[in-house]
Amino acid sequence: MQVRAKTTRRFLLEAAAQLFDERGYAGTSISDISARSGRTSGSIYFHYASKEKLALAIVEEHFANWPEMISRHQAAEVPALERLVALSFTVARAYRDDVVVRAGARLWMERKAIDADLPTPFVGWIGAVTGLLEEARAEGALAAGVVTGTAAHGIVCAFFGMHTVSDALDGRRRIEEHLRQLWLLLLVALQAEPDPAGLLARVLGGTGAGAVLPAQISERG
Amino acid sequence: MQVRAKTTRRFLLEAAAQLFDERGYAGTSISDISARSGRTSGSIYFHYASKEKLALAIVEEHFANWPEMISRHQAAEVPALERLVALSFTVARAYRDDVVVRAGARLWMERKAIDADLPTPFVGWIGAVTGLLEEARAEGALAAGVVTGTAAHGIVCAFFGMHTVSDALDGRRRIEEHLRQLWLLLLVALQAEPDPAGLLARVLGGTGAGAVLPAQISERG
Repeated sequence: MQVRAKTTRRFLLEAAAQLFDERGYAGTSISDISARSGRTSGSIYFHYASKEKLALAIVEEHFANWPEMISRHQAAEVPALERLVALSFTVARAYRDDVVVRAGARLWMERKAIDADLPTPFVGWIGAVTGLLEEARAEGALAAGVVTGTAAHGIVCAFFGMHTVSDALDGRRRIEEHLRQLWLLLLVALQAEPDPAGLLARVLGGTGAGAVLPAQISERG
Repeated sequence: MQVRAKTTRRFLLEAAAQLFDERGYAGTSISDISARSGRTSGSIYFHYASKEKLALAIVEEHFANWPEMISRHQAAEVPALERLVALSFTVARAYRDDVVVRAGARLWMERKAIDADLPTPFVGWIGAVTGLLEEARAEGALAAGVVTGTAAHGIVCAFFGMHTVSDALDGRRRIEEHLRQLWLLLLVALQAEPDPAGLLARVLGGTGAGAVLPAQISERG
C-alpha cells in the first residue's frame, strides 16, 4: 500500500509537471491534472492537499537533483575546470530533457504567483562553483587574477541567463551549442593557460558528440 | 482631446505596469487596474481593448527603450569597451528603477500565459554588443582570440542571468554590485591588456559612486 501510494504520488507529480511546464502555474488547474493523469481530483487532493503544495513538491524535487549531480562530478580524477564544464553540460541536458526540472524552473520563475515558500536558488550553485574553482586554484589551473567567489557568481549568472536566452531563441533545442559558446568566452578568463577549445574537446569528446571548434559555432550561431 | 487621450493611455499604462510588476499577468485583472488608476473598466477597455493588448503595449514600450539607450552610447569619443560597460549600467538601472521596464521584463517571462505575440528579445542586444566589440577590435582593445559574435552571445546571457540572480537574491537592490562583479570576470577575457578594475573605475568614477576594488566586492558579496 505504501509502495502503491508512492507510485501514485510520483505519477501525479509527473503529470502535473508536464502541464506546469506547458501552461505555467496559473494556466493549470487540478481538473487539468485530473484529465491528464486519469485520476480523480479527490485523489490529487488526497496526495497533495492543494495546487500550491503540488507546485512546491515539484520545485523541491527540481532542487533535490543538484546535490547528487554535483557530487558525481566531485570524485573523479579529472581536473576541476573540466569537471565544472562537464557538470554544466549535465545540468543543461537535465533542463532540456527532464520535465520535472523544466517544470520546477518555470514554477520558480512564476514564484510570485504561488502562495508557498519556495527554496532560494543560486546560492548553492555559487557555493559549488566556488569550491570547484578553489580546487582548480590548488591544481595551478586557475588564472592568477581570478577571485573565486566573484567568478563563481559570474559563471552562475551566465549559465542561468543562457537557459533563458536559449529557451527564448529556440526552445532550448540548441542549448548545448549555446553552452559551448559561453565556455569559449569564460574559460579565457578562468584558465591559467587559456585553451577553451582544447578543454571543451576533452570534456565533450567522450560523449560521442565530437569536439566543436569555435569556427563551427560561429558559423552556425 | 488627442493630447488628453494620450495622457490617459500613459496613465493607465503606468498603473497597469505597477500591478503587473507586483502581481504578474495572471494575478492582475482589469478591475484591479481600474481600482489602482481610479478609472472605470470601460475606460480601460476603450483605450486598450483587452488585458492582452495592455500587456503587449507594456512589453513593446519596454523594448522601445533600448534603441535610444544604445545610440546614446554610440556617439561618444570614449573607447568602445567602456561604452559597452556604461551601457550595461544604464540598462541595469532602468531595470531597477523604471516600472514599465520591470513590468515588461516580468510579462515577457510570463509570455506563455499571455495570448499575444510578444517581440523576441536578446537578438537585438546580441547585435548591438557585437557591434561594440567590433569597434573595440578596430581600436585594438579586444583580445586576439575573441570571436565577436560568440562573445556577444555570452555577454548577453551573463547580463540577463545577472538580472534573474539579482532579483532572486535581493530584489535587484544590489544590481550594480552584481554587475561590477560580472564585468570583473568578463573583461579579463575581452581586453587585449586585461585591467577590469581600471576600466570599471574609468566608467563609474564619473557617477560619484567611486571606484570599486575586487577586494571590496568579494568582502561584501
